[in-house]
Amino acid sequence: MSTTQTSKIEIIKAPTSKINEVDFKSLSFGSVFSDHLFECDFKNGEWQQPVIKPYAPFLLDPSSRVFHYGQAIFEGMKAYKDENNDVWLFRPDQNYSRFNTSAVRMAMPEVPEDIFLNGLNQLLQLDEAWIKKGKGNALYIRPFMIATGTGVIANPSNEYKFMIILSPVSSYYSGDVKVIIAEHYSRAANGGIGAAKAAGNYAAQFYPTNLANKEGFQQIIWTDDATHTKLEEAGTMNVFFRINDTLLTAPVSERILDGVTRKTLIDLARSEGINVEIRSVLVSELVEAFKNETLKEIFGAGTAAVVSPISGFSYQDVYHELPKIENTMALQLKTKLENIQNKLDADPFGWTVKV
Amino acid sequence: MSTTQTSKIEIIKAPTSKINEVDFKSLSFGSVFSDHLFECDFKNGEWQQPVIKPYAPFLLDPSSRVFHYGQAIFEGMKAYKDENNDVWLFRPDQNYSRFNTSAVRMAMPEVPEDIFLNGLNQLLQLDEAWIKKGKGNALYIRPFMIATGTGVIANPSNEYKFMIILSPVSSYYSGDVKVIIAEHYSRAANGGIGAAKAAGNYAAQFYPTNLANKEGFQQIIWTDDATHTKLEEAGTMNVFFRINDTLLTAPVSERILDGVTRKTLIDLARSEGINVEIRSVLVSELVEAFKNETLKEIFGAGTAAVVSPISGFSYQDVYHELPKIENTMALQLKTKLENIQNKLDADPFGWTVKV
Ligand SMILES: Cc1ncc(COP(=O)(O)O)c(C=O)c1O
Ligand SMILES: Cc1ncc(COP(=O)(O)O)c(C=O)c1O
Repeated sequence: MSTTQTSKIEIIKAPTSKINEVDFKSLSFGSVFSDHLFECDFKNGEWQQPVIKPYAPFLLDPSSRVFHYGQAIFEGMKAYKDENNDVWLFRPDQNYSRFNTSAVRMAMPEVPEDIFLNGLNQLLQLDEAWIKKGKGNALYIRPFMIATGTGVIANPSNEYKFMIILSPVSSYYSGDVKVIIAEHYSRAANGGIGAAKAAGNYAAQFYPTNLANKEGFQQIIWTDDATHTKLEEAGTMNVFFRINDTLLTAPVSERILDGVTRKTLIDLARSEGINVEIRSVLVSELVEAFKNETLKEIFGAGTAAVVSPISGFSYQDVYHELPKIENTMALQLKTKLENIQNKLDADPFGWTVKV
Repeated sequence: MSTTQTSKIEIIKAPTSKINEVDFKSLSFGSVFSDHLFECDFKNGEWQQPVIKPYAPFLLDPSSRVFHYGQAIFEGMKAYKDENNDVWLFRPDQNYSRFNTSAVRMAMPEVPEDIFLNGLNQLLQLDEAWIKKGKGNALYIRPFMIATGTGVIANPSNEYKFMIILSPVSSYYSGDVKVIIAEHYSRAANGGIGAAKAAGNYAAQFYPTNLANKEGFQQIIWTDDATHTKLEEAGTMNVFFRINDTLLTAPVSERILDGVTRKTLIDLARSEGINVEIRSVLVSELVEAFKNETLKEIFGAGTAAVVSPISGFSYQDVYHELPKIENTMALQLKTKLENIQNKLDADPFGWTVKV
């Protein structure tokens, strides 16, 4: 990772660390934050002095545009520590470029590489004690940007705040994941912002997800909003379907997030000799494959849960429980991926980047 | 307006007023705020002590869910002052119930009437000097709610902040409004959140609106995302089309905001003997009516701009400039409406409510 201009970042250290108060054995995802954060404001058409400082609340005007018009985007990535205490990122270039793709779609300024990647690098160096070794352990990284300009008029802000916060996470067993296929509600419109990691995309899913939860399903698999016939993705995961020995996953589009885990699994699977088809998968096809017993697996793929096996799906009020099988592709790919991320295996793809 | 439990609101007065610093002759919409705001937090499953206090920035944790997952909704309404210095609201029950409809869709707690309407009432009484008499003058009211719970995990917050802020506005001439009809980008999905006044709906429109602005169009008329053949609404206005002497406007749906101005104009127009049809209006129909010269007017309707005449529309790279006509329905209805809102005319509908 380039380290040009790192001298520019002002660093204000926390007087004491909170790390001893944290029980790393029982972390609830995204709820504990490290000692410092990275911050850079955009004002008068340019990015201001970046600063690393103690994690703390900050002041916002009640008319800040993020509250009223939802200009807010984020990324999700992880840092890992290997056996030699070296710290690694996984494909950070992908998150960086996706962040700026989101920024453009939400009419927000792009964040320079220098600020995003160097800021992250230095923040990780300062808070490296928060990264624990061992498979499943990681420091979850949340870069985000919000509109801080004031005024209740529906047009783009001229001031923004970019921040990076860090949250230690450990491997978690998400339990039995049953999903329901969306028949009425939708996540994204054609020509909408589904491909952006925009804050508003997530709140939009909470109500239908609550309804699904009440019926006993942990997640929704979204379909295209016009016909509800094409399988798209889950709330924070792309989705793979294994029919016989072929893996299927929807192509990315303006409705679907271009997941880093998704593209990584496609490459990993192919390198393992697994046939992967990237094409629209119809709900009818899934039901058909279930009936003729060629549907072997469904799993979600995303930074937070890595690979998340799905045990069955509901559609038109019928629950389809997948038969339990041995040697799943989900586990095979998850193991491969985690071993690369945790530097337990070689990384022939050059995906891991040392901090 | 009911005034039960008003005693509950704690009132902290600003030591001095900012009102003398404000030039009420040249107000830019939504940029100046009155001395006080109303605030009520939701915590531990219930609404806490409401308070009216000086308008000021407040502290939020960097992991507040509003920043990451966009749980944020708002309303827009106005208060008017009549010749006797009495203060009036226009159909506040409509904004109140729409606010809670938005809250449900965004998995946020509903705000009790007591908090919303009494809070507003008392805030207006305290800041009544900010409401100026005269047609076009009003105090714009912005109730809003944001998710203040912390943690970067994509599920609903368990803490929220409800606020009301006030901004004096005067009548403004929005200039010549030329619009472009959406052929690629969209505002809302079927089964999405288009009918909610959710913050994320607005940021989603900024990028396509910037593109439209660059081509010389001030606004976009959105179409259905699946086919782009049906005319829906503009960014912050519902839209009416006058073909011969009939007014047409799209029915509200889960993609379209149920505008208070829209439903008011429908009633007003009908009471004036104008034929109003509420039905899907096709883009092809609009182009056809333009060609055979039966398309007489297009106008937007919303709280901020009241009634906003549109001078022409672009579709498939062809700009269709409407012929200038006298005695427009837009002006007729705008005058009627403003006279009722400003208490210059009788209000046979019972829409105005005294504070
Ligand atoms: C909507 C959505 N889809 C898919 C993903 C998976 O993407 P990635 O693998 O880059 O984490 C995420 C989350 O990160 C997401 O928010
Ligand atoms: C998307 C949208 N449509 C229409 C309107 C008009 O609604 P109302 O007349 O209630 O202000 C608004 C704004 O207020 C809006 O945000």
